[in-house]
Order: sequence, then structure tokens, then C-alpha cells
Amino acid sequence: MIRVNLENIISDLSLSSYQKKVKLIDQQIKKKTGPGHEFLGWHDLPIKISNEDLDLMNEYAQKVRANYEVLVVCGIGGSYLGARTAIEALRGLKSNDPLEIIFFGQTFSSDYTFEILRYLGNKNFAINVISKSGTTTETAIAFRLLKNLLEKKIGKEKARQAIFVTTDATSGALKKLSLKEGYRTFVLPSDIGGRYSVLTPVGLFPIACAGLNIKEMVLGAIDAFHTYNHPSLENNEAYKYAIARDYLYQNGKSVELFVLYEPKLLMLGEWLKQLFGESEGKMKKGLFPASVSFSTDLHSLGQFIQDGTPLLFETIIHFENANNDVSIPFEEENLDGLNYLANKTLNEVNTKAFLGTLDAHVNVGQVPNIVLELETLNEKTLGHLFYFFMKTCAMSSYLLDVNPFNQPGVEVYKEKMFELLGKKKG
Amino acid sequence: MIRVNLENIISDLSLSSYQKKVKLIDQQIKKKTGPGHEFLGWHDLPIKISNEDLDLMNEYAQKVRANYEVLVVCGIGGSYLGARTAIEALRGLKSNDPLEIIFFGQTFSSDYTFEILRYLGNKNFAINVISKSGTTTETAIAFRLLKNLLEKKIGKEKARQAIFVTTDATSGALKKLSLKEGYRTFVLPSDIGGRYSVLTPVGLFPIACAGLNIKEMVLGAIDAFHTYNHPSLENNEAYKYAIARDYLYQNGKSVELFVLYEPKLLMLGEWLKQLFGESEGKMKKGLFPASVSFSTDLHSLGQFIQDGTPLLFETIIHFENANNDVSIPFEEENLDGLNYLANKTLNEVNTKAFLGTLDAHVNVGQVPNIVLELETLNEKTLGHLFYFFMKTCAMSSYLLDVNPFNQPGVEVYKEKMFELLGKKKG
Repeated sequence: MIRVNLENIISDLSLSSYQKKVKLIDQQIKKKTGPGHEFLGWHDLPIKISNEDLDLMNEYAQKVRANYEVLVVCGIGGSYLGARTAIEALRGLKSNDPLEIIFFGQTFSSDYTFEILRYLGNKNFAINVISKSGTTTETAIAFRLLKNLLEKKIGKEKARQAIFVTTDATSGALKKLSLKEGYRTFVLPSDIGGRYSVLTPVGLFPIACAGLNIKEMVLGAIDAFHTYNHPSLENNEAYKYAIARDYLYQNGKSVELFVLYEPKLLMLGEWLKQLFGESEGKMKKGLFPASVSFSTDLHSLGQFIQDGTPLLFETIIHFENANNDVSIPFEEENLDGLNYLANKTLNEVNTKAFLGTLDAHVNVGQVPNIVLELETLNEKTLGHLFYFFMKTCAMSSYLLDVNPFNQPGVEVYKEKMFELLGKKKG
Repeated sequence: MIRVNLENIISDLSLSSYQKKVKLIDQQIKKKTGPGHEFLGWHDLPIKISNEDLDLMNEYAQKVRANYEVLVVCGIGGSYLGARTAIEALRGLKSNDPLEIIFFGQTFSSDYTFEILRYLGNKNFAINVISKSGTTTETAIAFRLLKNLLEKKIGKEKARQAIFVTTDATSGALKKLSLKEGYRTFVLPSDIGGRYSVLTPVGLFPIACAGLNIKEMVLGAIDAFHTYNHPSLENNEAYKYAIARDYLYQNGKSVELFVLYEPKLLMLGEWLKQLFGESEGKMKKGLFPASVSFSTDLHSLGQFIQDGTPLLFETIIHFENANNDVSIPFEEENLDGLNYLANKTLNEVNTKAFLGTLDAHVNVGQVPNIVLELETLNEKTLGHLFYFFMKTCAMSSYLLDVNPFNQPGVEVYKEKMFELLGKKKG
């Protein structure tokens, strides 16, 4: 389903030189013996998700779709990036679906918060709050404000029906509150970290609410689980991508630039930044992850990529087919000189932009390019792609000799902030 | 109006060691003797903009606001980034202004194009097409499609009234078409490049349409022109920022990460990426520009910044005051443990997040931080800020010994693409 094209990485990477190390790490992942192994729950998750769980998510999603104008998804980091990525990628940026979805609880900005609360004041809305502990500060503040607003608007009883909680199975503030109030809840498994959680209810419930087919998405992930579940580099595209990244990093590249040719895929770049940046960026190591939308950003970052400091390589996530295509019309007068494109489709032009840019960056700019080739974007391919990247990320973090599943550096700013805010420890 | 705080750059930068070089470059800019001097039109633009020009923009903007539901701004690169930055920053991301503004003509994506055309099919819309030549491919295709749709919907005569063109004063396809059709036009001065054009009608007309005060914005830029119009590093914050960037680059940093604490300022990060990336990223030199929104992205890139490869420094653009503030409510039960924040405002919390993160990144992570301190975001401060950055960028590009005003690398992909599309040369 995904082909990792390494023809343009301008280097003499030999797969076989990595094979032994990859085999060892593959065993480490499967036998759960490496650092962070207690967070490997995502690995066989696709084949463990039950139909009952998916049916329940779909049932609650139908309630949301039938009864509300807006769903507010309240979460930060891994608790919103996966869902937002899938919903934008599959519904587009100007969706005509009747349910609007707003992401909230990911910022302390009073201006953003003020605007969202003002907007929701006139809307009939439901909430999906997502937090393992229930005390993540951004999300907890936002949820307190939302709950207040909702209870004032429609009363405590109706508000109860409109709140859906995704949290730990047994402990934490949100679990406690849910039991007390009788909120409908989904479980965020304790052996899966935020950035690996898109295929749990963290991602799947909002995605189902958006009117998308989560069963297909899981089928794609099951397919990926089997496809990448062996150590042979010749046939494992996820591992092939992992060693190409490692090789380029070891040979002097310090930035990986994720390239997307569809504006609706921009959030995938954000999801990838978290996945790779938080997994690999430790012990003073790791590729700095950045992302662009082409051809848009060829008119901003294109100059630097082509001809600036040679510190980066590109990873292009390329879908061959568009979901909807548009023909370029013929015009008698042709003042804009575009008639050479008349009756071509925009996706044909976008493909030539991709090929032309690849040629320019690789052969003129000497920028290594990895191309991930896919056919059509849909629930199934996106589920497959999510899993592919998580598998790659585990392998390439272990290649770097770092724990792919912790994030000790994220705690530092929190401690400093809590001190300044006068929060008591404990 | 802007204070450049260099207390956290973890280095022994001495202003005086740069003073001589800065003085020479300052002369080069003022006397227009450096490379690319033919594109220095932006430099004294603020004091040259006439009230008549601003009045005309406001007059046409009133027509747009009075007669249409949507304004489609059709442009790419510098022909949309400045306007979009200002409109989002000043109206917010969930504006309740009656005029919706859509940015288009910046992509070949057929999916995005399909969605926008579907959406506009039911809307009463006007167009502002922005292109110096009129043959920029993305923009020209989008405009052909929009014009077609509009003429079919409301007829050629009414469409004529709904189209506003920003283009060259005398030549090019759009100028020709405008003369023929009688479109209302604004001039894109030939001595100002795209990324320096936000204070020309390229930026100002859409900003006026958004209901914002462009006279205030120009006043802010005039203020900036005078404030930064002398070479003394002690008192020139734009130059001070330029040499700090240069110093960090020369001492091993290769990525500048622009940090914003307001989601509505995210596009400012995109504008800055173009400004600096396209100005400096040439001859295998330059800082790679990236941007984040905190605290949101502390939950994605925070780990890497705190503890990953030490290749970056941060530039924080910090506004002290929020435009709208929100109080955190008290809750009797306090299950979420947030009562220690009760009756504090979100902007107080956001400020502590900023200070705590600064401490964590600088003192624990050893990441140099430049802080640009501002008071309140409004038309005037934003106009000032735009000019400040352009002045910094000219100085720091010349410090790098590159031409700040060309972009030869952007042409390479275009040539390759045109070949693949079978476009005839000439």
C-alpha cells in the first residue's frame, strides 16, 4: 500500500549493512524488552480492537451527529493531533458535513478562548474531553469553562448527556468526575502514550463523530500490522524508511522536512512533528522535524530548500490520485497564457509540480528526497499510514539508542510554570 | 514600541564588535548601493504612502463590505501571507465580522480547489486577485476558475464590479485584462518584492476589506521607519535583533524557531519564514526558519527543543496584554485540582507559561532565547512589527553577504515543472 522510494536520497545506503541491527530491534519490539516497552500497547492494538468497542463509538457518534451542531474536542498534544489530522484529511478544509468540529483545550490563549466561548454561546454543542489524568492544565481549564457554559445554557441534566469523556480506565480526576456525573466514557489504555494513541478512542471517537468510517481505518491499520510485522528490510517499507532517516541523520542532515501536496494534509505534518520530535528528540539527539505544503510553500521556503544551508532532507508523502478533480477551462482570449493547460486537470498539474520540484531539489539543489508513494487517500489508507509511521518511529528511535516512548523534557517547563503559578506539589 | 531582550542568548555577544559593519550596511541600504538595491522601495514606503491611496482602498473596501458575503483573496507567497497574517492576528480565528475572507490561488490541489468552488457556488462573493505579472501559475489558474464561476453566476457586467486587481502599473497579463474589462485596480510597485509588500495594496486592501484600520497600520510603520532609521546599535532594536541572529548563526546554530503564544499569530510565523528564508537562504547559507505556537506545541516539539539536537535558538514574539481576557471560575468540588487558579485570568497563566518555558529552555536546556517584547496587539503595533522585521532582515542578509531581495532558487522548480507540462518558452 505504501512504497518507500529511495531513488533520490543521493547516497550509497546499503540495506544489508543495517539488517542485523534491525533484526535485533524488531525482536526487542515484539518481545517488549527495550526501554519504554511498557508503552508498546499500540503495537498489536489493531488486531486487538473489538467490534463491540467500535460499535459503541459509532453508536455514541450517531447521538452526537443527531443531536448537536458542534462537537468540541478538548485535548492537547496526542489528545487532539491524530483526530484533527484524520478529520481534516478526510473531510477537507471546507467540509459541508453538518457537524462542525472545534478543537479546544490546547492553549492558554485568552483571546482564542474568548472567541470560542463567544461562538459556542449561540450553538448547540457536545463535548469530548480527552485526558489521561484529567489534570493536564490547558485541557482542564478549557473543560471547566466549557462545562460551566453548557450547564448554564441547558442545565446540568442535559449537559450530562452532551459530555463524552476519554480517560484512564480506573484512576484520575476525569474518571472520578465521570463516575460521579454518569458521563459516557471511553478508555485510554494505560500502555499507550499520547502520540501513539490515534487508533484508540482518543482518535477514533471524534473521527467517528465526523461521519467517517472508523472500521475501515482500523482495517487499514490491521493490514499495516501484518505488512510490517517482520524484520526483513527488503520487504518492510516501514523499516526501510527508518534506516534511510537514520542514515541521512548519521551522515550530516539535521532537519527532516515533511512535504505534503494537499493543504488538507497539513495537520499530518503536525502529527508527524510530535511523533518523531517527541520520540527521538532526547539526549541531545534526533532530527528536527518540520513540514511544508507544496506548491504553496515553494513560494516561501522553496528558496532556502533549493539553495540555503544544506542541512535538510525531504520526505514527501505523495498520493497519486485526488479525491475530487477539477478541469482547467479553455479561454478564447488567453491573456493569462494558460491555454496550454486547458482541459488538463489540476491533479495532473499538481503531479508535474511534484515531479519538477523533486528534480529541482535533488538534481540541482542536491537535497536528498525520500518519497512515500500512495495511491488514494481514504479511511483505510490513512489508518495504514498512521501505523506505518508509528512502526518506523519505534525502529528509528531504537536505532538512535533513545527510548521512543517517554518525554522527560516536556515536564521541565511544567514544573517551572507550576512554581510561578504557586501550585502546591503533590 | 519593541524591546529586543538579549538577556537569555547564553553568549557574550558584544554590540560594539558589530557596530562598524552595521554602519556600513546602514549606509548601503539608505544610499541604495548594495546588491538588490533596485528592490528597496519598501524602505521609505511608509512615509510615501499618500492619504489619497489609503482613502481609495478604504472606499473600495467599503463597497466590498457593503455588497458581498465573501472576499476571495487570490494570490501566492508574498501576495497572501501578509494580508492573511494581519487579518487573522487582528480579527482572530473565529471572527464574528460579517465579511468572510478566503485565501485561494496558492495551491494546485484539486481537492482544495473543488471544495472552495463548491462553497462559493452558494455565496455572493468578490475577488481580489494579486499578481505582479498575472501569469503566476497557481494564481492564474485559480483566477480563471473564479472568474468563470462568477460570470456564470451573476453575468459578465456584475462580475466586473466584483473583481479588484492588484498588479503592475503598466505591464503584464492582469494589467492588460484589467484595462480591457475595466476592473478596479491597485498598483503593486515594481521596486518592492513580494515578501516586502505587506504595506502596499497587496496587503492593505484585503486588510481594509476585513474591517481593519489601515491608516493606523501605516502610522505604526511610519513610527518604525523613524525609530530604526539610524545605525547606532545601542538604540536600534531592529539592528540589535539582526546581529543577535547573525551571532548565533555564526556560532553554530542553524535553526531559528519563531515562538508565538497566540494561535491567531500562527500566520505571522509563516510570513516570517518567507521573509527570512527567502531573503537569507542562498549560496548554501542562512538560518532555517521554523515556527511554533506555545503552549500547544510544547506538547509536540517541546521535548526536542528542551533536550534534542542542540541546533536551534528561539525568537519569542511576546505581547504583554491580551485583547480579551477570561477568568478561571472557582468550583466547589475541585476534582480537577484547578482552584489554585480560580479568579486568575487566562492571560496571567499564559504569561507564567511563557516565563516558565523561558527558564526551562534557557537554564535547563541551554537553548538561546531572544525575546521581542511588545505591549498590545493592534493595527498600529502590527504595522510597526512588520516594518521592524523587514529592516532586521535587510541588515542580517547583508551581514551574511547575500542579496536580501532576490530569490533565484524559486525559479528552478518552475522551469522543471513547465518542461513537464509542455509549456513553450518565451
